[in-house]
Amino acid sequence: MTIIDIIDYLGTFAFAISGIRLASAKQFDLFGAYVVGFITAIGGGTIRDSLLDQTPFWMQHPSYLIVTFIALLFVLTFSKYLVRLNNTFFLFDAIGLGLFVVVGIDTTLHVGFPFWVAIIMGLITGSVGGVLRDILINELPLLFRKDIYALACVMGGVVYYACHLLDLSSGFTQIAAAISVMLTRILAVKFHIGLPVLKGSDDESPSNL
Amino acid sequence: MTIIDIIDYLGTFAFAISGIRLASAKQFDLFGAYVVGFITAIGGGTIRDSLLDQTPFWMQHPSYLIVTFIALLFVLTFSKYLVRLNNTFFLFDAIGLGLFVVVGIDTTLHVGFPFWVAIIMGLITGSVGGVLRDILINELPLLFRKDIYALACVMGGVVYYACHLLDLSSGFTQIAAAISVMLTRILAVKFHIGLPVLKGSDDESPSNL
Amino acid sequence: MTIIDIIDYLGTFAFAISGIRLASAKQFDLFGAYVVGFITAIGGGTIRDSLLDQTPFWMQHPSYLIVTFIALLFVLTFSKYLVRLNNTFFLFDAIGLGLFVVVGIDTTLHVGFPFWVAIIMGLITGSVGGVLRDILINELPLLFRKDIYALACVMGGVVYYACHLLDLSSGFTQIAAAISVMLTRILAVKFHIGLPVLKGSDDESPSNL
Repeated sequence: MTIIDIIDYLGTFAFAISGIRLASAKQFDLFGAYVVGFITAIGGGTIRDSLLDQTPFWMQHPSYLIVTFIALLFVLTFSKYLVRLNNTFFLFDAIGLGLFVVVGIDTTLHVGFPFWVAIIMGLITGSVGGVLRDILINELPLLFRKDIYALACVMGGVVYYACHLLDLSSGFTQIAAAISVMLTRILAVKFHIGLPVLKGSDDESPSNL
Repeated sequence: MTIIDIIDYLGTFAFAISGIRLASAKQFDLFGAYVVGFITAIGGGTIRDSLLDQTPFWMQHPSYLIVTFIALLFVLTFSKYLVRLNNTFFLFDAIGLGLFVVVGIDTTLHVGFPFWVAIIMGLITGSVGGVLRDILINELPLLFRKDIYALACVMGGVVYYACHLLDLSSGFTQIAAAISVMLTRILAVKFHIGLPVLKGSDDESPSNL
Repeated sequence: MTIIDIIDYLGTFAFAISGIRLASAKQFDLFGAYVVGFITAIGGGTIRDSLLDQTPFWMQHPSYLIVTFIALLFVLTFSKYLVRLNNTFFLFDAIGLGLFVVVGIDTTLHVGFPFWVAIIMGLITGSVGGVLRDILINELPLLFRKDIYALACVMGGVVYYACHLLDLSSGFTQIAAAISVMLTRILAVKFHIGLPVLKGSDDESPSNL
């Protein structure tokens, strides 16, 4: 088991915990909460693999099922103490997000797509799981509204591309990109930095045609 | 037309009826209700085929479109009497669910994936249509919250796997798996058996970073 | 740049504007609104390409990203005047819809599927973007409930098929199909023509099993 595997499992664990907790708050049953946790953890990579016409990564190894199951046991056992662990989960989540984005970019470049597609796939890998989670629990997708989540994924893609243009080694590039995702995310939450919110009317109806 | 075809059409019919009725309750128009019925009926198999990189089954024969259309005519004609037929629809639904799960498992094993992937694909085939239906009508997915629906699909997969380990014939295995899905579902509804519901707070926000 | 490209960009622009405006009304941040606009514009074609096992069209050229970005700038700059432009957007949307439907049909026939699949793919290409938009902003899909949107796509498919049966040239067929989508849509909105709405109870629970 490499350091990458460990980060991957930590990220999966944190994403699954987030899905399980939000599903619990909506009175999902045990199995429903497990499914929402699993989809939160693997949803982004699955959509990426589907768009790239690859076999979804989680179908090749049961570890993601198992890590999600451990996350469920964890929530059941420590439900009273979870709120105190919010900072820990947030850190796992930020670290996992950095890794997921880099994996998404690497996979896409490897299949032969140009960089702008890879940056989008990094974004999809990091953020679609949380969007699917919010759709399943029937809430407005949080990450489009708060704390620079999606943009942190894009930031990682831009740093990846900059390192590539500067001909830096692929190991350095990956670490730099992952760390910039994490730092963007952590700084945004710490200092409550958000993007401007659009204010609009939803009156789209044509008149007097 | 084999007995399998008949069960397949009954299941499709029951799934489509369920989508059409719930869409009607939300004031969807005729065509919208038809689309929701169709997606309820074919959604699970479509996601399965997409994950397995197969051509979606309903694109190979128009029968699913036609059965859904008959379901729409049926709802229009007998709308007053539908509630009295709830038990009949429920039985069709349970029988169809058993078949859908077995078809999902068979297809996946045939493509060459291991058993644990096949069990997940059985679950996806049986349950994703209902989840998509609930997303389209903007409700919390019912099956994650009530009456052991998703778990009945998994139960079928476990029985399938047990029969396989015991080297039973494939015909017997398929029937045993389908019947265990149906019975699990029927017993859960008859005796109001549900999984424990998680109770959780949705306060995930990190503090004092 | 051909006339087809121009219509394609106009349609993409109108679809993106619609996504960005509805996301703004829900307090999405700038980036979230951009993403919703992009998904509204490319969602239908992406699901079509995925079902047909083709590389999603927008991954082959960055123009859809760029047109969506221009749409975002447009909404930001002219937010006060947007309501006055509703008729213009509606026309762009109807013209784009006609083109999207025809592109969906052509692509599907080209891959070798029969006509009834192509008509469904025309419907998917034209309407799924708006459905995904409404799911993301957590609203009931508008197009299943108002003003003959989905059925206009099917109408285009039927006209396409009729022209094909009459052995008309492919250029004429495409234009006739696109125009019938537009006219159906425009007439439905102008004269407030809608499909009948189903009225149903959502009481599906079986009793006295």
